[in-house]
Amino acid sequence: MRSDGRSADQTREIRITTNYTKHAEGSVLIEVGETKVICTATVEERVPPFMKGQGKGWVTAEYSMLPRATAVRNQRESAKGKLGGRTMEIQRLIGRALRSVVHLDALGERSITLDCDVIQADGGTRTTSITGAFVAMAIAIDKVAREKNLSRFPIHDFLGSVSVGIVQEAACLDLNYEEDSKAKVDMNVVMTGEGKFVEVQGTGEDAPFSREELDSLLALAETGIRSMIAEQEKALGPIAERIRRGSHASARS
Amino acid sequence: MRSDGRSADQTREIRITTNYTKHAEGSVLIEVGETKVICTATVEERVPPFMKGQGKGWVTAEYSMLPRATAVRNQRESAKGKLGGRTMEIQRLIGRALRSVVHLDALGERSITLDCDVIQADGGTRTTSITGAFVAMAIAIDKVAREKNLSRFPIHDFLGSVSVGIVQEAACLDLNYEEDSKAKVDMNVVMTGEGKFVEVQGTGEDAPFSREELDSLLALAETGIRSMIAEQEKALGPIAERIRRGSHASARS
Amino acid sequence: MRSDGRSADQTREIRITTNYTKHAEGSVLIEVGETKVICTATVEERVPPFMKGQGKGWVTAEYSMLPRATAVRNQRESAKGKLGGRTMEIQRLIGRALRSVVHLDALGERSITLDCDVIQADGGTRTTSITGAFVAMAIAIDKVAREKNLSRFPIHDFLGSVSVGIVQEAACLDLNYEEDSKAKVDMNVVMTGEGKFVEVQGTGEDAPFSREELDSLLALAETGIRSMIAEQEKALGPIAERIRRGSHASARS
Amino acid sequence: MRSDGRSADQTREIRITTNYTKHAEGSVLIEVGETKVICTATVEERVPPFMKGQGKGWVTAEYSMLPRATAVRNQRESAKGKLGGRTMEIQRLIGRALRSVVHLDALGERSITLDCDVIQADGGTRTTSITGAFVAMAIAIDKVAREKNLSRFPIHDFLGSVSVGIVQEAACLDLNYEEDSKAKVDMNVVMTGEGKFVEVQGTGEDAPFSREELDSLLALAETGIRSMIAEQEKALGPIAERIRRGSHASARS
Amino acid sequence: MRSDGRSADQTREIRITTNYTKHAEGSVLIEVGETKVICTATVEERVPPFMKGQGKGWVTAEYSMLPRATAVRNQRESAKGKLGGRTMEIQRLIGRALRSVVHLDALGERSITLDCDVIQADGGTRTTSITGAFVAMAIAIDKVAREKNLSRFPIHDFLGSVSVGIVQEAACLDLNYEEDSKAKVDMNVVMTGEGKFVEVQGTGEDAPFSREELDSLLALAETGIRSMIAEQEKALGPIAERIRRGSHASARS
Amino acid sequence: MRSDGRSADQTREIRITTNYTKHAEGSVLIEVGETKVICTATVEERVPPFMKGQGKGWVTAEYSMLPRATAVRNQRESAKGKLGGRTMEIQRLIGRALRSVVHLDALGERSITLDCDVIQADGGTRTTSITGAFVAMAIAIDKVAREKNLSRFPIHDFLGSVSVGIVQEAACLDLNYEEDSKAKVDMNVVMTGEGKFVEVQGTGEDAPFSREELDSLLALAETGIRSMIAEQEKALGPIAERIRRGSHASARS
Repeated sequence: MRSDGRSADQTREIRITTNYTKHAEGSVLIEVGETKVICTATVEERVPPFMKGQGKGWVTAEYSMLPRATAVRNQRESAKGKLGGRTMEIQRLIGRALRSVVHLDALGERSITLDCDVIQADGGTRTTSITGAFVAMAIAIDKVAREKNLSRFPIHDFLGSVSVGIVQEAACLDLNYEEDSKAKVDMNVVMTGEGKFVEVQGTGEDAPFSREELDSLLALAETGIRSMIAEQEKALGPIAERIRRGSHASARS
Repeated sequence: MRSDGRSADQTREIRITTNYTKHAEGSVLIEVGETKVICTATVEERVPPFMKGQGKGWVTAEYSMLPRATAVRNQRESAKGKLGGRTMEIQRLIGRALRSVVHLDALGERSITLDCDVIQADGGTRTTSITGAFVAMAIAIDKVAREKNLSRFPIHDFLGSVSVGIVQEAACLDLNYEEDSKAKVDMNVVMTGEGKFVEVQGTGEDAPFSREELDSLLALAETGIRSMIAEQEKALGPIAERIRRGSHASARS
Repeated sequence: MRSDGRSADQTREIRITTNYTKHAEGSVLIEVGETKVICTATVEERVPPFMKGQGKGWVTAEYSMLPRATAVRNQRESAKGKLGGRTMEIQRLIGRALRSVVHLDALGERSITLDCDVIQADGGTRTTSITGAFVAMAIAIDKVAREKNLSRFPIHDFLGSVSVGIVQEAACLDLNYEEDSKAKVDMNVVMTGEGKFVEVQGTGEDAPFSREELDSLLALAETGIRSMIAEQEKALGPIAERIRRGSHASARS
Repeated sequence: MRSDGRSADQTREIRITTNYTKHAEGSVLIEVGETKVICTATVEERVPPFMKGQGKGWVTAEYSMLPRATAVRNQRESAKGKLGGRTMEIQRLIGRALRSVVHLDALGERSITLDCDVIQADGGTRTTSITGAFVAMAIAIDKVAREKNLSRFPIHDFLGSVSVGIVQEAACLDLNYEEDSKAKVDMNVVMTGEGKFVEVQGTGEDAPFSREELDSLLALAETGIRSMIAEQEKALGPIAERIRRGSHASARS
Repeated sequence: MRSDGRSADQTREIRITTNYTKHAEGSVLIEVGETKVICTATVEERVPPFMKGQGKGWVTAEYSMLPRATAVRNQRESAKGKLGGRTMEIQRLIGRALRSVVHLDALGERSITLDCDVIQADGGTRTTSITGAFVAMAIAIDKVAREKNLSRFPIHDFLGSVSVGIVQEAACLDLNYEEDSKAKVDMNVVMTGEGKFVEVQGTGEDAPFSREELDSLLALAETGIRSMIAEQEKALGPIAERIRRGSHASARS
Repeated sequence: MRSDGRSADQTREIRITTNYTKHAEGSVLIEVGETKVICTATVEERVPPFMKGQGKGWVTAEYSMLPRATAVRNQRESAKGKLGGRTMEIQRLIGRALRSVVHLDALGERSITLDCDVIQADGGTRTTSITGAFVAMAIAIDKVAREKNLSRFPIHDFLGSVSVGIVQEAACLDLNYEEDSKAKVDMNVVMTGEGKFVEVQGTGEDAPFSREELDSLLALAETGIRSMIAEQEKALGPIAERIRRGSHASARS
């Protein structure tokens, strides 16, 4: 039994509120336990210089925490004048993960920027950001697909993410902050609806881990990600169906 | 009649949700119409170098907008590597305004940082930030006052703020974004519960304004700020009473 | 009686030396008491990106102090690697104020940059910069108007600025540094030759101020600005006449 | 058969030249095929602020490429004025990996900085840096252990790293640049001499990967890392023995 | 005959106005022809970290140009966010040159900062800065010597500087901007009152120069620097005598 | 006799290894005693903005030291976020020196960037960089000349550089670090194969130097540079002949 009463293979409560703010093409508030992230998707009719003229789109992400999302206030990176390594690592991860389920050529020469702003942090902010950003992205791309009459729905699979770790010798799913700070192994996994891995990032800084431990962590992650994707499907309603159809089109192509 | 149906001397709907996030010593979500700002107050048991050893406290503020708080996405200042002039101007204003109603010596050698993060913008973000930050600050200082047994409540008056402007030749209260962008004169006013001015910042970039226009704007601002302060009192409950008592103590001293 | 022998409604001695340096299209040394500012105007046949293709001009300003303009040496902002909030606030104010008396469409697609470099500071550096920059701008625009045969003189009114404040319970005009540091209320006012307000920025950080105090400060500011504009007219000679005519043209249009 | 004639489970030639430069406490040139990295270890008798007073040491790393280590010249990060996300991600990874085999308390309150400077790049620069940095660190720590008479050898296991990936549907070991740029899945693995994982970072940006693919990649990585560690042992000579003894001490404690 | 009527071995008119601004411990306006530089000296009772605890003083310099000191406006380095290479090179040169004539131990643990701000540029701004900064430094150090009762005058020789160059095959003294931009060889020389070299910096980017050319340039430089030092002596009045005495003390020691 | 057994007019051993890395158009490892620098030349078919459309090429240089090239580790400039003054001064010097022997119009509208990365420092890193960069540049330009069929070989003379100084009252050639740190006068000289000066930079911060001292230093420098150029000729083989022919062409033109 864990400190918050969950069993080892149980996620925290997941809530996804769509259309959370009014200006963005897609926006959600995602809450996984006490971790809360606002994810917005912005569509722009241009791509970064290195993508120009290829007829393909681009998906990128930015990640930030409000200074007081955490127990102790963090200095703003805008005030420091530069992004920290952790922020860069996370936003590169989010962008890369999201692109793995988007047909960039079906999107056309436009870009989607996902802003993930953590307003309250209690562990798993990067995995929660990925899960939430997927929903915001789907809403925005659905809008583009309808307005621009895209011939094929550009998202071909769901994408969820969760953290797992070894806490007091036990493999646990969806660590909260307290567990995360005690974990000897920490792993973030991103997986598609089809059950394939997009990212596996495991770190045993405090203690290296065996192949058996790795296997049990991956099994837990799969369970957790299925729950995340189930919530995404509920939140997306009819758009979920379009993703499933995109997926079939993709399988046939 | 204004585009959203209000009369010239009417504010938008004001909502203040206290304890909006869990880590900060004080936190509120303030909504004035469609403008939404998360204000958190952080207490730290130290003051900036220039204040050390004086036995006095410090109050400061930081202001930021989420990239997609606005109709068009703004680049993050952390990504640009520096704060813009507008941001600096606003956060200096918020800090200065809040300090005007705090007895820094009654606070003791500790600092309060107010983070104002705009999650949705529709005009008046700086005035809304001041009004919301006052409530977050009062909650945090009340916690300090009780935990540290301060002999005197360090806040001696309420503090509200509103924008006014001349839109199509008419003086209007609490401009939304659409009005603000058409206004020929734009003024931000900060006022205490006692009805005194803390800041008056009027700008007639597009057209200079007469003394009569200035007078009518100041009158509207006073009306609007009374509404803001009424909402602060409701949101603060028993803490409001402690501010009123601090005010009397202040008057006697 | 004030420490330097002036009455409450008296400005310090004002001196404006035109053509102070040889390269700029317009340049002045303005001295208000011991405050000395070099203001130069640069004309460039291009506008910033956000103004392109509109057939209109642009006016902007930069402000800086020599490190030893003050009693204690200030670190250069170039060495710090960024502009401080105070500098940004001041240069935004100067630019905004100057634009209020310029017909940007009469100027044509070119820009005027006003550099205000304080070589000695004794209070009122931002207001002195505005007053001096107006003269440098007028000289430069006059040169453009003649060389490019502009059909209409692009400046339609004079523009002066002064600080006022409440020092030891008395409203005083044109504060020097010593007074400024003791003032409980500090206000900067920018006004046109016609007597209309362009900027009113009053701050009562140390003590909020009443409506009566505001009224007396505004009255003093008007007196002071009339003196500033009188000196501008003397310094500008025949160009002053062109501004007055531009003003009439403007009134008729 | 691969383009350079290797079989799928074969690494490129590995060469480790110790004492490559004269000033550093430990230094090696490591070459894995055409990838060449200078790794130096610097010992300093102080730790970063966040580690002070705990009686423990610290190990950290910095990574950089010479501008022309690659086919196309890259702009220096010193000229850009900031570190890119990729660099930060890599240097965080190297530091974290090295710390996993060091008893920070046996090291005492001193820090080891590993500088990994890529002078020629042909794929696998981050894994080569880890393998080389381990050797430079071991030489430097051995010097400290002897000079300061440490009671226990602070390194308790070997540490090697290699990249693996799926290239044209085949799992391959130790990708060169050409293979890396065609790989649909790319994985970096860090492992100890004991055969435990320290880092597993797999990315399927271009195509998600199945559990079976993950398993075959991990098996290849283990093979490759054993080769890397065999070369480390040869290069370290008698120091290798001290690490093995540190490991036993560690197992007993 | 040169374009401004001077002979090849003639400097432009030199004017040194002492006590040009009121706050600095030493300040001059130096004019060499149309080149005008404000030099101020600031005394601070502390030294940089690398000099602490040695009982010695420090002398350093900063150099800047007003944006419109030149025919075309230069962007401020504070706005760019960094100092350019040329600025750094010049301020390092000025500091190094000034230190060569100061007994840092006689100065005691305090620092002198020389700010050289070019308000109008017409060639030779770095050499003019050195010549002017020497005078500002001497005034400031004289003040220190008297106030702190230093046992020995810390300046032991005069220091002047001038530029020379080869323009249209002729060696010329004290180049103005027009000549400087046509010169095939450009040399800056700094020399003491005693006639010894402190800096010789000759550059033949457009054409290498022979030993004979170098010799004739050095001879011209010596002539020019004697004129500069003669003006320094006039400007310094009784302080010049103290420098001469310091020089003798130095010779005896 | 010097500490390393050399006579006053003797350089350290010079070794130039060409084609040291595989990607650059030209690359060398140059060793002068224990000072080791990797110099690479990159050819790009474009010039910087200020050179565009003139039909001429450009040559520029960047200089850096590995953090542990020196006895004490230096912080990376990329981590500091800016280039230091010393670095800028050196890279400006290298670029300027190299351009002096290149016909920029014969090169055509393309640029050569020389990266000089010091991997081990023992005095004379800037002069060694110049000598090595010349060889890397010659190899790269030779490749361009052959591939693009340039009608004239763009390099018209050799270019070598050495440091000289006055150490314990004796003029010495090619100072190592230990000598350099004790030298009272330090001079860097750059000279062409023809024996003309390109740069003479002498500094007597610790003690001004006489004309006689200057003369003896220049004579030593000439000797040393002849040795450097002899090594360049050996390293360049047939390319050396093309430079000699370019020189004759140049003499005739």
